[in-house]
Amino acid sequence: MKPFTDIGRLSLNQITTQRWSVREAVDGCVRTGIPFIGLWREKVAETGLRESARIVRDAGLCVSSLCRGGWFSAATAAERQARLDDNRRALDEAAALGTDVLVLVCGPAADRDIGAARAYVEEAIAQLIPYAAQHGVKLGIEPLHPMYAAERSVIVTLAEASRLARQFDHNHVGIVIDVYHVWWDPDIYTQIAEAAGRILGFHVCDWLVPTPDLLMGRGMMGDGVIELRRLRYAVEATGYTGPIEVEIFNRELWDMPGNDVLHLIRTRYLDHV
Amino acid sequence: MKPFTDIGRLSLNQITTQRWSVREAVDGCVRTGIPFIGLWREKVAETGLRESARIVRDAGLCVSSLCRGGWFSAATAAERQARLDDNRRALDEAAALGTDVLVLVCGPAADRDIGAARAYVEEAIAQLIPYAAQHGVKLGIEPLHPMYAAERSVIVTLAEASRLARQFDHNHVGIVIDVYHVWWDPDIYTQIAEAAGRILGFHVCDWLVPTPDLLMGRGMMGDGVIELRRLRYAVEATGYTGPIEVEIFNRELWDMPGNDVLHLIRTRYLDHV
Repeated sequence: MKPFTDIGRLSLNQITTQRWSVREAVDGCVRTGIPFIGLWREKVAETGLRESARIVRDAGLCVSSLCRGGWFSAATAAERQARLDDNRRALDEAAALGTDVLVLVCGPAADRDIGAARAYVEEAIAQLIPYAAQHGVKLGIEPLHPMYAAERSVIVTLAEASRLARQFDHNHVGIVIDVYHVWWDPDIYTQIAEAAGRILGFHVCDWLVPTPDLLMGRGMMGDGVIELRRLRYAVEATGYTGPIEVEIFNRELWDMPGNDVLHLIRTRYLDHV
Repeated sequence: MKPFTDIGRLSLNQITTQRWSVREAVDGCVRTGIPFIGLWREKVAETGLRESARIVRDAGLCVSSLCRGGWFSAATAAERQARLDDNRRALDEAAALGTDVLVLVCGPAADRDIGAARAYVEEAIAQLIPYAAQHGVKLGIEPLHPMYAAERSVIVTLAEASRLARQFDHNHVGIVIDVYHVWWDPDIYTQIAEAAGRILGFHVCDWLVPTPDLLMGRGMMGDGVIELRRLRYAVEATGYTGPIEVEIFNRELWDMPGNDVLHLIRTRYLDHV
């Protein structure tokens, strides 16, 4: 397995430089030669949708994805409807920003019935498809780590995400694989192979030991135990040649100067991914 | 699904009353009418093996299991041998205490190669079997939650634990199911059904929302989101009628008077399990 010799597929997921605005993140990518950026809705809203789209376009960057849609289950029909409406707004935003991938973090159950919540995720995605298709944006189901099953997503394995995605036309629904969420799975290599043709994104970071925190404990590539290159090769073997997003929730990184973070990302990407 | 009307299958896993000695925990069980106790090696060592065995026997309690063997992988052959020797001592202790189940927490990988570590767990269990058989003690593989994959166990799904157990004679190797570790699994009910005849123990607690901590955040039954009774019914449907251990790592519970904890366990067991 060989390292990359360039950063032609590297994408900065904006959360990794959490203190930066859209403009700062875009400028940082341009300075560092990073060709893609993954945007977050909250950050885009701060700058404004049109202005964010203009900044990215003028800089010549490509938007690898927009984070995030999903969060479907809710206690009442009215709330569930509001969530669907919000997802349609997210699709509008993705289209305006020029990306064809909306990342779905499917959300927790509204009660103890995780099975019913999983079934509802399928129903909600079905309802979004016409609008997504109309806007030329694909829904990328991201399985989250099982430790988030109660608070962030009832979809917690790649197998389940794939099963869900296969219910729909691959032109509209696919999968986003983040190594942090799936590396522990004893069937991960089989599951990646079976996701061939459905992979819409590949996110990297690392799993730190000891694990400092459930949410904020993700590490820079090379600082943890994930077999990053082996996973990257497995994803490539399915035919995926798209952007590789670096998405890291980590307080220490957030406190570093953004330019330092970007240089570190470049180095670690070439050394470890 | 009906609640229990008595606590005839209830077991106190000793870690739940972490500040109590073996004698205090045994006395507490007797006072509360709890017929089983799950012991921890560290606690048994504090009291002494023979004395612990005598205390339990004199009180008329049954020992549901001993925690814990396992932790197999290590960087050097000498260390791996030392781990196997320690597991043999754990088997001696289990036999002396009168339990036929040693719970295996299989341990993390010694490096980034989680696949190799999984293969080594199988090899290590194979090496322990003759000694376990000789002592009339079964090895109970406990799949841990995937968030412990890097620090506590490379065996993180019931499917993987079952696959591993099936490599061996069911008279010597089985599975211990703790709801906390497996509740999130979209295939959990299928997996439980497929573990029929292999289940050596069933542990309950709850998954709190929000999750306060990776290790110390387990909750009392009823305080979280796990479908406890549905899982208990699924385990019973396989034919398992053995003890149900309450194993909770939680600082607040540890700080409560032990008797209060035991009364709370009894109430919650009858209401939620």
